[in-house]
Amino acid sequence: MTLPTSFDQGVVAALSALPAQSLRHVFFVACGGSLSIMHPAKFLLDQHSAIASDVYNAAEFVARAPRSLDGNSLVILCSMTGTTKETTAAAEFARERGARTIGLTVEPASPLARAVDHVVSFEAPYTTGVPIDAVNSNYSRIYQIVMGLVALTGGEDLTEVLIGSLSSLQGAIDRADQTFAPLFEEYAPRFAKQDVIYTMASGASYGAAYSFAICVLMEMQWINSQAIHANEFFHGPFEVLDKDRCFILLKGLDSTRPLEERAEVFLHRFGSPENILVLDAAKLDLTGIDPRFQGNLVPLVFFDTLWRFAYKIANLRQHTMLEARRYMKKISY
Amino acid sequence: MTLPTSFDQGVVAALSALPAQSLRHVFFVACGGSLSIMHPAKFLLDQHSAIASDVYNAAEFVARAPRSLDGNSLVILCSMTGTTKETTAAAEFARERGARTIGLTVEPASPLARAVDHVVSFEAPYTTGVPIDAVNSNYSRIYQIVMGLVALTGGEDLTEVLIGSLSSLQGAIDRADQTFAPLFEEYAPRFAKQDVIYTMASGASYGAAYSFAICVLMEMQWINSQAIHANEFFHGPFEVLDKDRCFILLKGLDSTRPLEERAEVFLHRFGSPENILVLDAAKLDLTGIDPRFQGNLVPLVFFDTLWRFAYKIANLRQHTMLEARRYMKKISY
Repeated sequence: MTLPTSFDQGVVAALSALPAQSLRHVFFVACGGSLSIMHPAKFLLDQHSAIASDVYNAAEFVARAPRSLDGNSLVILCSMTGTTKETTAAAEFARERGARTIGLTVEPASPLARAVDHVVSFEAPYTTGVPIDAVNSNYSRIYQIVMGLVALTGGEDLTEVLIGSLSSLQGAIDRADQTFAPLFEEYAPRFAKQDVIYTMASGASYGAAYSFAICVLMEMQWINSQAIHANEFFHGPFEVLDKDRCFILLKGLDSTRPLEERAEVFLHRFGSPENILVLDAAKLDLTGIDPRFQGNLVPLVFFDTLWRFAYKIANLRQHTMLEARRYMKKISY
Repeated sequence: MTLPTSFDQGVVAALSALPAQSLRHVFFVACGGSLSIMHPAKFLLDQHSAIASDVYNAAEFVARAPRSLDGNSLVILCSMTGTTKETTAAAEFARERGARTIGLTVEPASPLARAVDHVVSFEAPYTTGVPIDAVNSNYSRIYQIVMGLVALTGGEDLTEVLIGSLSSLQGAIDRADQTFAPLFEEYAPRFAKQDVIYTMASGASYGAAYSFAICVLMEMQWINSQAIHANEFFHGPFEVLDKDRCFILLKGLDSTRPLEERAEVFLHRFGSPENILVLDAAKLDLTGIDPRFQGNLVPLVFFDTLWRFAYKIANLRQHTMLEARRYMKKISY
C-alpha cells in the first residue's frame, strides 16, 4: 500500500523507510508539553492496532531501559525546539539499542533532528507568533504517523479519511473559539483569583488536560494544579471538591466520554456552577471531521481554544504568559 | 520450571494454569490506591522481560477497549475490598475478550474474586487494624506474579531471590519507621498547616508518590496535591516552587534515582529546607533484601512509613483519617 499524497512528506518518508512487518513495539517519548501529545497518540494506536506501545517521559525511558526496546522497536520523539536534552539523549539511547527513531520538531537543524533517523517537522504558533493551520501541528503529524503505521501493518486504512478530517480541523478550532468565548469571558475573572485549579479528562483528551495543568497553569501562571483522570477522580481526588474549588472538565467525543459525564454530574452536585468550567465537545461544529476521528481531534480543539482562556486569566492576573517564568530558560539547572 | 514452594499458593496456582508461552500482553488494571501498585509492577516487568504491558484505570480500560486485548493477554486486577465496581466490570470485560484474569483482593468472596479466573488474596492492615507482615501485602503478591511470569516465559529466574527479599521486607519497614521518625516529627507541624503539598518520585517509586497524593493528602486530609514525576517537574511544574511551597520527595534505589537527585538539588536551591521533606532510601537498613530488588521494594517501605507521617498530620489538623471523608463510601455516586 502507499500513503496518500496529501500526507506530510516527512511522515511519508519516515514510514516508507520502516520495516513495518517486523515492528513489535512503539515507544512515545518526550517531556512536558510534548509528552502530552503522546497520550492521545497512544489512545489512537490502542484503538486501531494490536501493536504494543508505551508513553514515557524521556529521562524515565532512558533510566528504565525497557527490555522490549530493540531492533523491532520504533521510538517516536517530540521536542518543539528540538533542544530538550533528555529527549535528544533518549533518541541516542534508542538508536544504540537498534531501534528506529522518528523525531518531531519545529527545527530541522536542532540536536533532536540530528539524533534521529527521520525528522518530521511541524509548525507551532508559539515560536513564530504567526497563526498556523492545525493540519501542520504536532498533533496532526503524530496522528498521521500513527494511522500510517496502522495501515502499513495490516490494519484498516483510514489515512485518506484522517487527512480529510485534519484539513477541516482549523475551521473547527476557529468556530470553537467563538462557541467558548462567552464561557471564557464569564469564568476568567473568578478563575484568575484562584491558587488551585484542577483539570480533568479521560481517554483521548487526557493529554490536553495534562498540558494545560502543567504547562499553562503551573508553568506560566504559578497556579497549583493537577490533571485528574475523570475516573481516578472518584478514587481519592474528589474529596477536595467543595463549593469553592475550581475545575476545568473536558468532555470529549471518544469512547471514554461516559467517564467525563459521570465526573460532571458529581462536580455539579457538590461544587458551585460558577467554579466548574465544562468544555463540551458536543456543542462544537465539527463539519468536515469524520465521525471516526472526532474523538481524536477534539483534544486539539480543546488545547488550542484553552489558550484563549489562559491569556484572559493572564491579563487579569497581570502575569504575562511566556515572560513570567522564574526558572525555565532563565537559569541553568 | 517450577515456582518456589515459599511463593504464595494463590500466585502459584494462577501462574501454573497460564499458557505462559502464548502470553503476549499484560494489562495491569485497577483504580486509585490499587492502581498505584500497578506502576511499580510494570516497572519490574519492563526491566526483566520484553513482554508488553499497560497500566490502566479500570474504567478507562473498558472504554478504551485496546485492540491488543485478546486470548493471549493476561489481565491482572486489584481491589482491596473486591467491591470496586469499575474493576469488577473490567474483569468481566477481559474475560469476554478471552483474556486470562487474576484478581488480587483481601476478600476471596467479593465480586472481583467471583469475576476472575484466579484469585490471589493479600492482607491489608487498613481493614483489620491488625499489623501485617509485608510479605503478605498486595505489593509482595503482585511482585511474585511478575517475577513468576518472567521465569515462566524464559526470563531470568529470580523467584527464590525475590521471596527471600520479601521475607526481609517487614524488618526493613520497621527500621525505616525509626529512621524517619525524627524527620516526621520535625516536618509534621509545618505540613499540617498547608493547603497544597506535592509529592514527587520516578521509576519504581512513582506509584507510592501517587497513592500518597490522591489517597492520603487529597482523600483523607482534603489537602490539594499532585504526584509529580521527578523529570516532568522540570518541564512545567517547577515554576510553582517558591520558599513557601511544600514537597515530599521520594529518593529510591532503582535506576531512575538520578532523576530524583536532580529534583532534590533544584528543590533545595529554590525552596526552603523546612518545606522539602526528602525520604532517602540510601539511609535505610535493608538487610536481607537482595540488591537486585532493593529498588523495587523501597517503594513499599516509603508507602508504609508515610502512613506514620499521615497520622501525625491528621492529629495536628484534628482531621481523622478514614473517618474524615465527605463522599467516599458515605453517599451514592
